[in-house]
Amino acid sequence: MLHVETVAVDHPLQGLVWLPEGKLRVLDLRTLNGQPAVATCSAPAEVLALMRDGAVCGGAALGIAAAYALALAARRPVPPVAWMEALQPLMDELAAIQPMAAALQWALGIMRQTVVSSKPGDDMALRLLQAAQAIQAADREANQVMARLGVQLLRRHKASVHRIMLHGYGGDLSGGGGGTTYGVVRSASAAGLVGEVLVNEARSTMPHAEAGVFELVRDGVSASLHADVEAGRLMKYDGVTWVVVGAEKIAANGDVIGPLGSYALAILAMHHGLRFMVVASTATIDSSLPDADDLRPDQLGCAPGGFGGGEMALDVTPVELIDAIVTEKGIIEQPDEGKIANLMSVRQLH
Amino acid sequence: MLHVETVAVDHPLQGLVWLPEGKLRVLDLRTLNGQPAVATCSAPAEVLALMRDGAVCGGAALGIAAAYALALAARRPVPPVAWMEALQPLMDELAAIQPMAAALQWALGIMRQTVVSSKPGDDMALRLLQAAQAIQAADREANQVMARLGVQLLRRHKASVHRIMLHGYGGDLSGGGGGTTYGVVRSASAAGLVGEVLVNEARSTMPHAEAGVFELVRDGVSASLHADVEAGRLMKYDGVTWVVVGAEKIAANGDVIGPLGSYALAILAMHHGLRFMVVASTATIDSSLPDADDLRPDQLGCAPGGFGGGEMALDVTPVELIDAIVTEKGIIEQPDEGKIANLMSVRQLH
Repeated sequence: MLHVETVAVDHPLQGLVWLPEGKLRVLDLRTLNGQPAVATCSAPAEVLALMRDGAVCGGAALGIAAAYALALAARRPVPPVAWMEALQPLMDELAAIQPMAAALQWALGIMRQTVVSSKPGDDMALRLLQAAQAIQAADREANQVMARLGVQLLRRHKASVHRIMLHGYGGDLSGGGGGTTYGVVRSASAAGLVGEVLVNEARSTMPHAEAGVFELVRDGVSASLHADVEAGRLMKYDGVTWVVVGAEKIAANGDVIGPLGSYALAILAMHHGLRFMVVASTATIDSSLPDADDLRPDQLGCAPGGFGGGEMALDVTPVELIDAIVTEKGIIEQPDEGKIANLMSVRQLH
Repeated sequence: MLHVETVAVDHPLQGLVWLPEGKLRVLDLRTLNGQPAVATCSAPAEVLALMRDGAVCGGAALGIAAAYALALAARRPVPPVAWMEALQPLMDELAAIQPMAAALQWALGIMRQTVVSSKPGDDMALRLLQAAQAIQAADREANQVMARLGVQLLRRHKASVHRIMLHGYGGDLSGGGGGTTYGVVRSASAAGLVGEVLVNEARSTMPHAEAGVFELVRDGVSASLHADVEAGRLMKYDGVTWVVVGAEKIAANGDVIGPLGSYALAILAMHHGLRFMVVASTATIDSSLPDADDLRPDQLGCAPGGFGGGEMALDVTPVELIDAIVTEKGIIEQPDEGKIANLMSVRQLH
């Protein structure tokens, strides 16, 4: 049975924690701005339900949660004859939660590889747990590098002091820790580069925006919540210098599938002469998708917790509107297919 | 004492009704999508409170309500020595509710004129009541003409069938009756010109958007409510042909002060090659304001019922982004100062 309790949260926030007794502790993103709630999961179905309900949000976090769900599923007194066969239905259910979340599909690929590369007699529960922990650690490390590179990018284009508009949740709970877009603004704020952070409500995932402002303010960032209709006015009058968003998937040409409303903000940013930055690890890059601009909304799929029960929560920002993509392998300014292919072929840049 | 009760609403909706017993009945816009509530006001302070609380919304409706509040204030057993002096404090309070609402200030100007032009012995209560009723009737008539002209404009630019995005409430309760933007889409829908109407949530005045969808659907228009972050996606994929908004004030050069978010929508419309229409009576044109694009947000003032308790509910759409302004005196395409001055000098066009 799923055990849920309200708790005092850690600092920094830890969204997904593997407990020594072999359970997964999940901090519910939706409760962050109120009475924070954690659930302790001992069965994969419990993790699956939390992912579906929007307690876990963002491709990287979904990927890590999915990996732990599989690790939980491998804890059996009697190992099955064929592991892959035994785990496939769960893998399918996990993959279906957000088909557009490249980091989720990437994590599932690693877990699948771990299963198929195992030898008879291996401790599958241990191997899958180690793989899940490695996925989480890699994402945390990628976030640290991206925060550093994002600050480099802001310094490179320094005006006097930056006012950054955030759209979509990219905080501690969006992945392995440290955040994507929030990691950049936190580091930039600590470095004295940021005057103010304007967090769009990004309605359709509103509780996340409220939680996000809570999280940033708690970390000493000057942040405020804004209705989506204010974006044009804020860009015109309030000296916004960058719009910063995350991504669920980046196509080979640099088109970005991200939080609904990113597309309009990119147009508005261009109109006002502001810059538009995407912060996302290379796990979100899908080289098999040539471009995304022609994807119809119904091909983007629905995200949990959508506005009005099932509205689209994603849209596509075409690469022409993007000034920079920050990944853990490096920054790409004025992205295009060649630069992205180059980046992906580099093994280590940092 | 203010009497409030829930009622079955009339069809068409009547926002402000003068009752034979000398009271003003106010249908609360905020309750339309739930249990409609009407308040029966016998004192001007009751009307003032409803205007401040957002039960009455839109410059034209505020102007009519203000006129009736003054008519109520003139019902006294003993007439004062100096009427203007006696009514001035109330006029000031009414004007302060929404300084940017040109139709409110215009209505107050007519009421003031009625007071100062009266002769000793005139029945002031009757004169002010007649003036208020004339203001309401003129606005209702203007709305009818604008609905007809708006349809003309849509026919002139006819593609196959129009999909219209509405932003801000312009329905029956926004003025003397019939609506501004809603009047156009209702008439166009009845004429078979409209496939679908997409109503933006226009968050900061959200209950109004919900009420608006309720109102349109009830009138047989195919309408749906959308989160503001969807606008870009809807323009790109859903074949939107026109964005239609109202105005609180139009400057001499054609800059439009309207519902917050209109500015961003105008930029997005231009980017997608769609047209942008403003529907507003000439009472909203303020020839003493040369242009509005340089007005700072703090100069626009706050509207009642704002997001987060006091956020801006208005912004400015510069005239370059506007394809047409529809008034009761005629349509202005590609508006500019000369065309607007011309229109205002014409006494009767229809």
